[in-house]
Amino acid sequence: MTVDLTDVRNARAYLMRVVEPPAPALAALVDKLGPVEAADRVRSGHVPDCVDAETSARREQDLVANDFALAEGVGARLVIPEDPEWPAWPLLPLAQATLERHRCGLPLGLWARGPVPLNEALDRAVSVVGARAATGYGAEIAAEFGHGLANAGMTVVSGAANGIDGAAHRGALAARGPTVAVLACGVTINYPASNSSLIDAIAERGLVLSEYAPGVPPGRHRFLVRNRLIACLGAGTVVVEANLRSGARNTAATAAALGRVVLAVPGPITSAMSAGCHELLRTGQAVAVTSVKEIVDSCGPLDASPDDRDRGEARVTDALAPEALRAFEALSIRTGRSPEHVALASGIPLPRIRSLLPELELTGFAARVESGWVRAVPAG
Amino acid sequence: MTVDLTDVRNARAYLMRVVEPPAPALAALVDKLGPVEAADRVRSGHVPDCVDAETSARREQDLVANDFALAEGVGARLVIPEDPEWPAWPLLPLAQATLERHRCGLPLGLWARGPVPLNEALDRAVSVVGARAATGYGAEIAAEFGHGLANAGMTVVSGAANGIDGAAHRGALAARGPTVAVLACGVTINYPASNSSLIDAIAERGLVLSEYAPGVPPGRHRFLVRNRLIACLGAGTVVVEANLRSGARNTAATAAALGRVVLAVPGPITSAMSAGCHELLRTGQAVAVTSVKEIVDSCGPLDASPDDRDRGEARVTDALAPEALRAFEALSIRTGRSPEHVALASGIPLPRIRSLLPELELTGFAARVESGWVRAVPAG
Repeated sequence: MTVDLTDVRNARAYLMRVVEPPAPALAALVDKLGPVEAADRVRSGHVPDCVDAETSARREQDLVANDFALAEGVGARLVIPEDPEWPAWPLLPLAQATLERHRCGLPLGLWARGPVPLNEALDRAVSVVGARAATGYGAEIAAEFGHGLANAGMTVVSGAANGIDGAAHRGALAARGPTVAVLACGVTINYPASNSSLIDAIAERGLVLSEYAPGVPPGRHRFLVRNRLIACLGAGTVVVEANLRSGARNTAATAAALGRVVLAVPGPITSAMSAGCHELLRTGQAVAVTSVKEIVDSCGPLDASPDDRDRGEARVTDALAPEALRAFEALSIRTGRSPEHVALASGIPLPRIRSLLPELELTGFAARVESGWVRAVPAG
Repeated sequence: MTVDLTDVRNARAYLMRVVEPPAPALAALVDKLGPVEAADRVRSGHVPDCVDAETSARREQDLVANDFALAEGVGARLVIPEDPEWPAWPLLPLAQATLERHRCGLPLGLWARGPVPLNEALDRAVSVVGARAATGYGAEIAAEFGHGLANAGMTVVSGAANGIDGAAHRGALAARGPTVAVLACGVTINYPASNSSLIDAIAERGLVLSEYAPGVPPGRHRFLVRNRLIACLGAGTVVVEANLRSGARNTAATAAALGRVVLAVPGPITSAMSAGCHELLRTGQAVAVTSVKEIVDSCGPLDASPDDRDRGEARVTDALAPEALRAFEALSIRTGRSPEHVALASGIPLPRIRSLLPELELTGFAARVESGWVRAVPAG
């Protein structure tokens, strides 16, 4: 069953152009009325004062057609929560976290440039962040981690900035892995210009994302708001290098507030670019990390570590019959999958899958979500 | 009142030559009977089986006169628990810790070469340890820490080995501070030979210590036993560099078991010589440390940090009248001081000190120990 989402998409595109995110009052209105009705109210100015404060300045701008045309020019699409590829699970903490301190709140949509479905790209993701003025040491580590994480099947999320960000993206691309860049400007702008060809390369294999409308220029506050998305989209955030006033420390604090793992790379104590990492370690805000394996152990999905499989210890899945185990292993922890998908992935006939999935649900190994079936772990 | 301790000193010197430390059964016998009686029993072989196992091999060796002659040749003395300069407080955890796992147990005495009283040298001490095969980075940090700690009035304790140990001692000497080297051989042997002139320099300004009799050569097991003293004598142990199999990690584990602060210096994750430090950090066995100030904050006495004094916050000592505060400040946390000493240090007449000290005891600010009065901190 395919639903025509044109009106919904247009309404969200309009609202994304009107507000400066995050806009918690508008988000609440959209939750209550739906995006189409909320957009109509905003357009006509019939909204509560708190929403009016967020929307009145730009509500008469209707640039939706123009935005879609600009996006099309760079091969970008607008992904909205109503789409199957919306990364609902990875973004979940943003809906729950305190708004004020960490500029949280869900995006109304995400402009996306690149061939990979958003939910797939973010199913196993790690954020790698750090100083723009990285040292040779930091850039080398970031590239090595990016490369190793891609080889381990993890998506590297970062901000496409100079220094650590760029090195991490490049490392992932060198391993031919998808990587995700979240921008603080519209996806039509390759910022910083020095990373323009890098951003194009990311858009070819992975995804370039932004909650800002096409053409919106980068702004200082937008970097801070953007950072919350980077902090949220990875199961963990690795700070490779940061000086004591680095924005990467802000990203780390947000990641921690969102319940994400925070890791910091030690470096020479004589290096100012490692001082922020050491401060995170000293204060217990981050765990020291020295290898890709340690990152995967901390941030990877339960089934990602080959070590665990080889230990021969008792596992909860030992209780599953072989066929049920195959179906279980074809499920993702985060992304809902259709019975058809599970049948294909497991090689078990679809009718059998249709009976296996409810059985797995009964024993606690699977759960039904809006977008399909996800893997669960039985209590105890 | 001076007691003639010649018999006691001779008895302990004899027992130290007989046993290979640590010797818990003999220690218990000495506790019970006193060193003179215990030595007589060991000499005649009239001891329980457990003590016999520790003492029978060498009980017929009586090299006491020779040991004192050898010691005198290098200007060394035997310090025993009955002496006022015995560092009872710094060694306290060794009397309490589990013997088996960390080769603990109190030394029967300490041969000491150098001009500084043991208890004074160890009143504010930090142990600095690390790999023999230190990198340039590690050696530089160790020297800088040694220098900075000496300038902050702290005594650097280490093992006089090549690499980190030597660099830390040298840094402390460069700041003209006392530093303490604990050897795994007799104090008459400058081991390693490459550090011979360093060990002589330490003996000139600080102390070279050993629980092994003069002339006893270094041995592999003796390094491990010696390490417990290094771990105990500092209020904290700083691991500057260590590979994954370094003895410094063993010292760190012992320090933790003895209730001492354990600090580790981060370094490049590409350096094998920092891998042991990073493992200590990752597993939460150590806190990251990047500066002398951080070490002093973690390991220094309560009154060592000028920051605390300047903060203007309420302090427990605000409750003390000016005269009582002066007496309190003339006390040491660790070393027992006589009323005469406190009178001199505070400039308050002795009769008044004699009444102030019991008053401070009543309010919890002072305590009586065998060697005099020590500073205490009131509960709550």
